[in-house]
Amino acid sequence: MFKNSRTFKIEWGDCDPAGIVFYPRYFAMFDHSTHLLVEAASGMGKYDMLKAYQATDFVGYPMVDTRARFMIPCRFGDDVTIDSAFTKIGRSSLDVEHRLFKKGQLCLEGFETRVWVGRHPQDASRIKSQPIPDDLAAKFRANP
Amino acid sequence: MFKNSRTFKIEWGDCDPAGIVFYPRYFAMFDHSTHLLVEAASGMGKYDMLKAYQATDFVGYPMVDTRARFMIPCRFGDDVTIDSAFTKIGRSSLDVEHRLFKKGQLCLEGFETRVWVGRHPQDASRIKSQPIPDDLAAKFRANP
Amino acid sequence: MFKNSRTFKIEWGDCDPAGIVFYPRYFAMFDHSTHLLVEAASGMGKYDMLKAYQATDFVGYPMVDTRARFMIPCRFGDDVTIDSAFTKIGRSSLDVEHRLFKKGQLCLEGFETRVWVGRHPQDASRIKSQPIPDDLAAKFRANP
Amino acid sequence: MFKNSRTFKIEWGDCDPAGIVFYPRYFAMFDHSTHLLVEAASGMGKYDMLKAYQATDFVGYPMVDTRARFMIPCRFGDDVTIDSAFTKIGRSSLDVEHRLFKKGQLCLEGFETRVWVGRHPQDASRIKSQPIPDDLAAKFRANP
Repeated sequence: MFKNSRTFKIEWGDCDPAGIVFYPRYFAMFDHSTHLLVEAASGMGKYDMLKAYQATDFVGYPMVDTRARFMIPCRFGDDVTIDSAFTKIGRSSLDVEHRLFKKGQLCLEGFETRVWVGRHPQDASRIKSQPIPDDLAAKFRANP
Repeated sequence: MFKNSRTFKIEWGDCDPAGIVFYPRYFAMFDHSTHLLVEAASGMGKYDMLKAYQATDFVGYPMVDTRARFMIPCRFGDDVTIDSAFTKIGRSSLDVEHRLFKKGQLCLEGFETRVWVGRHPQDASRIKSQPIPDDLAAKFRANP
Repeated sequence: MFKNSRTFKIEWGDCDPAGIVFYPRYFAMFDHSTHLLVEAASGMGKYDMLKAYQATDFVGYPMVDTRARFMIPCRFGDDVTIDSAFTKIGRSSLDVEHRLFKKGQLCLEGFETRVWVGRHPQDASRIKSQPIPDDLAAKFRANP
Repeated sequence: MFKNSRTFKIEWGDCDPAGIVFYPRYFAMFDHSTHLLVEAASGMGKYDMLKAYQATDFVGYPMVDTRARFMIPCRFGDDVTIDSAFTKIGRSSLDVEHRLFKKGQLCLEGFETRVWVGRHPQDASRIKSQPIPDDLAAKFRANP
């Protein structure tokens, strides 16, 4: 399955009065990592992907279920790495796992199940699950 | 000019490692206050307003220029009040001022100039300033 | 077990380019709900609680494990209610569940396991799990 | 005066339902740029700086006055550069300017006045302006 990794610095504004990352910010970090994973696998950023497909075929991959386990807190100034990988590509769902490391130590891990959706053909205010296009699914399953 | 006020509690997640509000969060609070001010004056929430107008006539009122002055820090658990008021309604611009109080003390004040925009008629990816509809402008200028 | 509920409006700034809540924001909403739940049960806000206890006995209740399941998206302007309840009070851990409703429909639910911690007595830069004080544990277990 | 620059990608979660950056996020980006500017000039991250000084001499450089002017909106996936520079170093205040570029075009600019503070010697819950240490002030004024 496709993998990707990125390294960045924890910001002052990511942290709470305890001096450690306010945990909802980790989900924002993981969300960005998933977008970068999809971009690295597909060769297309989300903005271009939204233009490349009909809205009834693709408007996004919203979260269905996510979980995170926290082992070691991070604080502002920490240089961290998030390793992200697809773990399952279904007909219209995709599972992603993230692991965040600081100096080689696993600090937390995140698990996501998302669904591939397009605009509902009869009601543009709603969304409807759609099959992941075959070429994309193959790229998500490929080893980088 | 129309005024509005709201009271809420500063959240743990609004605060930084110094234990006080991370100042970008104040701009998010002011932004919400402006939406509530427009809603209170017009009788319409933004979602309904977006549906009520053609996209070429209205897609939003993005920020052009904003400033804030900080006098007294706030911390998690503080109950604060934001007083918001239109201060100038131009042809296609609107000025708003916010003042945030804690126990009657002015903690900070914010100033905004926004522009009323619609989708560009020739290029939907761009926006174009549009006149504020007369009925809305009248409501924004009215004393509540 | 103690329960609490709160109602609020989804903000424009909580939402992403798909027009729905950016899911990390739900965790920030749940975090605030947990603080309000602890405050309602204990009769003490977090700021006062931090002052009431020795730092070696209490500096917070950081997240150990959290999960959310998403059923119905919410968008800006939606009036939502979060029902929160303790579901398990251990020696030094506490489980909380949140359910977010829009017009009576369950939109998402969140699950948290947190740990009660104080500053490590030998190393103030670290934290150490501590027993939840008996009087607080009794209040968390009480029916409101 | 010391200058610094950084390049990064606008995230999906930075953007609002109009598909462009939710402007309070720009202030968070500018805040991080100021921390990086101080770190680049001083050779010390904020965490280390907080440990290097007595709390009565230094606990931070909170915002006193900030303003931003918005010319061109940015959207998710945009690669942007923020150029940051000190523009005035006073006895206990520091002015910083930020300019954010996309493909060489100036999109917005931000202006900050911050004050150097330590804990109040008589009341640790308050802060008090303090002179910027001479060696740091010299580094902030130096051309990189």
